[in-house]
Amino acid sequence: MRMSEGVEWGLHCCVTLGWLDEHAPVSIRRLALWFDLPQEYLKKRLQALARAGILTSSPGIRGGWSLTRPAERITVMEVVAALEDGLDLFRCTEVRQRGAGGANATDAEFAETCGISAVMRRAEMAWRRELAAHTIADLMERSPQGAERTRRDYLRMAGSA
Amino acid sequence: MRMSEGVEWGLHCCVTLGWLDEHAPVSIRRLALWFDLPQEYLKKRLQALARAGILTSSPGIRGGWSLTRPAERITVMEVVAALEDGLDLFRCTEVRQRGAGGANATDAEFAETCGISAVMRRAEMAWRRELAAHTIADLMERSPQGAERTRRDYLRMAGSA
Repeated sequence: MRMSEGVEWGLHCCVTLGWLDEHAPVSIRRLALWFDLPQEYLKKRLQALARAGILTSSPGIRGGWSLTRPAERITVMEVVAALEDGLDLFRCTEVRQRGAGGANATDAEFAETCGISAVMRRAEMAWRRELAAHTIADLMERSPQGAERTRRDYLRMAGSA
Repeated sequence: MRMSEGVEWGLHCCVTLGWLDEHAPVSIRRLALWFDLPQEYLKKRLQALARAGILTSSPGIRGGWSLTRPAERITVMEVVAALEDGLDLFRCTEVRQRGAGGANATDAEFAETCGISAVMRRAEMAWRRELAAHTIADLMERSPQGAERTRRDYLRMAGSA
């Protein structure tokens, strides 16, 4: 049970696009170079973020990718949800209703949510709440060194690549 | 990103073994019949719970499976951890250090945990805390109808099967 690596890529791209806001849009080629990621596969991830309304792309030789709104208004939860198919960690298949065990139960019993499912859901909600409590702007602020390095080295790379 | 169905099976088996405590041990054949689950595959899940010290099995015609300790002292987290390989939902591959972006960074910057990784870890800890806050006994208490039905129908099945 693990998230796809696209979630890590997408979060780093969002933070980097936030830091490079003054220099946006940033081309897919430069983003791929920046993190040494496979360009075509990265593009699919950025397109998923665009479908979720987090990124936007502009065409042309000076085109590229940028955040659609201030980084303060993009939560980590939104980015994860855009990149990960299905956020339900636990899937209840109503095991309690199956077999000899469930055969003679009343409808009333199964009308209530299974207690196991309820506890698993509660834990997932705690996870999601935490992801929703942090924004891309929070991540940007956590690494002032990263911000400074990104702005400095990106301009250097953009000048040569 | 989803847990294996074995987690659902294992939790239901633990709750059922808790309810049937007076009638333990319960044979794998009856547990499989009870939930209409494939016996050999279920066995692997119960063996994983035994390795984690949650269940124990006894051999022989009257043998079977039982909880190793009171249900009050078995958390949902323990059961999930025993049945799911790797509980790290997010794996940090240090994308920040790769490519042109990481090339000219200082060692000091990367000595600190990546902010993205830290937020993801924090969310996972919230999930785990919630799973650790509930025990098998809590799940047993949540369904008095299930307890009553299980004790009644299991004895009926055990008489005939």
